[in-house]
Amino acid sequence: MDIVSAADLSKYAVEPGWSFGLPFVTRWSEVDPFGHASHRTHLVWCEEVRNAYFASLGHPIVGPDAAGPVLKEVGFTYEQPLAVGDEVLVTGRVAWVRRTSLQMEYAVWGRALAGRGHATCIWIVNATGERLRVPDALRCQMVERDSAKDLEASSE
Amino acid sequence: MDIVSAADLSKYAVEPGWSFGLPFVTRWSEVDPFGHASHRTHLVWCEEVRNAYFASLGHPIVGPDAAGPVLKEVGFTYEQPLAVGDEVLVTGRVAWVRRTSLQMEYAVWGRALAGRGHATCIWIVNATGERLRVPDALRCQMVERDSAKDLEASSE
Amino acid sequence: MDIVSAADLSKYAVEPGWSFGLPFVTRWSEVDPFGHASHRTHLVWCEEVRNAYFASLGHPIVGPDAAGPVLKEVGFTYEQPLAVGDEVLVTGRVAWVRRTSLQMEYAVWGRALAGRGHATCIWIVNATGERLRVPDALRCQMVERDSAKDLEASSE
Amino acid sequence: MDIVSAADLSKYAVEPGWSFGLPFVTRWSEVDPFGHASHRTHLVWCEEVRNAYFASLGHPIVGPDAAGPVLKEVGFTYEQPLAVGDEVLVTGRVAWVRRTSLQMEYAVWGRALAGRGHATCIWIVNATGERLRVPDALRCQMVERDSAKDLEASSE
Repeated sequence: MDIVSAADLSKYAVEPGWSFGLPFVTRWSEVDPFGHASHRTHLVWCEEVRNAYFASLGHPIVGPDAAGPVLKEVGFTYEQPLAVGDEVLVTGRVAWVRRTSLQMEYAVWGRALAGRGHATCIWIVNATGERLRVPDALRCQMVERDSAKDLEASSE
Repeated sequence: MDIVSAADLSKYAVEPGWSFGLPFVTRWSEVDPFGHASHRTHLVWCEEVRNAYFASLGHPIVGPDAAGPVLKEVGFTYEQPLAVGDEVLVTGRVAWVRRTSLQMEYAVWGRALAGRGHATCIWIVNATGERLRVPDALRCQMVERDSAKDLEASSE
Repeated sequence: MDIVSAADLSKYAVEPGWSFGLPFVTRWSEVDPFGHASHRTHLVWCEEVRNAYFASLGHPIVGPDAAGPVLKEVGFTYEQPLAVGDEVLVTGRVAWVRRTSLQMEYAVWGRALAGRGHATCIWIVNATGERLRVPDALRCQMVERDSAKDLEASSE
Repeated sequence: MDIVSAADLSKYAVEPGWSFGLPFVTRWSEVDPFGHASHRTHLVWCEEVRNAYFASLGHPIVGPDAAGPVLKEVGFTYEQPLAVGDEVLVTGRVAWVRRTSLQMEYAVWGRALAGRGHATCIWIVNATGERLRVPDALRCQMVERDSAKDLEASSE
């Protein structure tokens, strides 16, 4: 269901290479005094796409005692401002997987490309901080869905 | 007032090179279901430090018709989780200034370094999108306060 | 489009008397450390429903120089907690209209009724604070859509 | 420490009857496109005051397995808009205590009274939903600090 339809990919003029995403509408509470979606808004949307992405591959957020992706680093580049009521499609994909980490990329598509972001996640048991190997089955799914680079041989 | 006191720099074991910052306390509404300050929290703190920094140099946010710094890109790397009630000092400084852009760096200091971030800003009239030269007086102040690199000769 | 379909009214077991609403999914960033949608979440949803309601009657938010509904008072009673990922339908209707004010009521429907709220709004030009009569055409639409009580003869 | 000083009570022209509070500064991210602190902002401040109030009486938030105050109902009436950078003092007190519930009142003091709110809380073990009697010692403290009405004999 979160796999984006061809109709949506076309409606938002999404460039090739994205197959997963969620739609959002810019809320009044997400817009700053200058009338533009706040910089935090895009990151919250990316967070929803991230959680939905892993859930779609059988790894929903379970709880702090189960291993899962935890944010190590985020970044976002803003291209076009968004106004209240603007509809967007936020796409997400995995760029690479290492032994215990991975990177997701995001793009926010409105009337034009509104921006691009990324998040580096560590596969970790939240409650203990124990860093674990990204599960093999999940790794394969990400490589298959997104042609993600498998860099397991390299550092953590 | 926003110039951090020696006592605070010492209390938070801030590394040399930071002189400006604001204190924050992690709010209940800023903590996620795993009990950690959400990734957006650090970025909101950095935003407050950014606004206070420019205000302290005589450039408060005036309105969409006046030129000022607008976010082009942000990033943050998380080092240690923060819990509700945790006190932090968020320091900010300018790393470099080009003709029409500049980069601020941030660090969040709790019991240990909680993370580091940055924001690249364009000097722009929000309402028109007109990109302007960073004012000379401001440029000098940033170079003086933070030993910021003046890269005006280089690209935008 | 924001008029709720019979299918949705049925899916969420909405009680009679509601015809307008918007669907939401509880976000990770809206959930508190105990795993429940924060109290502010319901109010943000109600805000979106309020704006959509007025837009659907030809009164979108235009700007601070145009007259429109401004919050005077809000309230919400929580009945059942919501967890991350929970889908809800948030319905809104006008309970009464006076000369320069009106009250909206809201209900949040999840697996069960998650809560009810209300907002009292004043019809005002934001920039000047000038309090104006609720437009006649709008008044009629609200009375017709929601059987709202028209209390114009009474106080402000 | 959260007991408001006479100097602050005087600075904000707080009416008699309030002795507990916290200072806040209106953030850029808390201000809406019309330049006013969003309605949710006041409620988030009240939440911080509520948590600090109970912590000051020896009942910090511990976790979902310990009994504590959980929101049943909130309300807020807005009197004066707040702008970015506006400093406020948010005061809180307990109005009444019943067997398993209590009501807190809040006021937001800026250059003038910005608004008043309240929250009705149930004393509950979050994880199980078990409703418990408000602890006697805490009840006495609230009655003593705020002249709160003790309505234990009445309904829940």
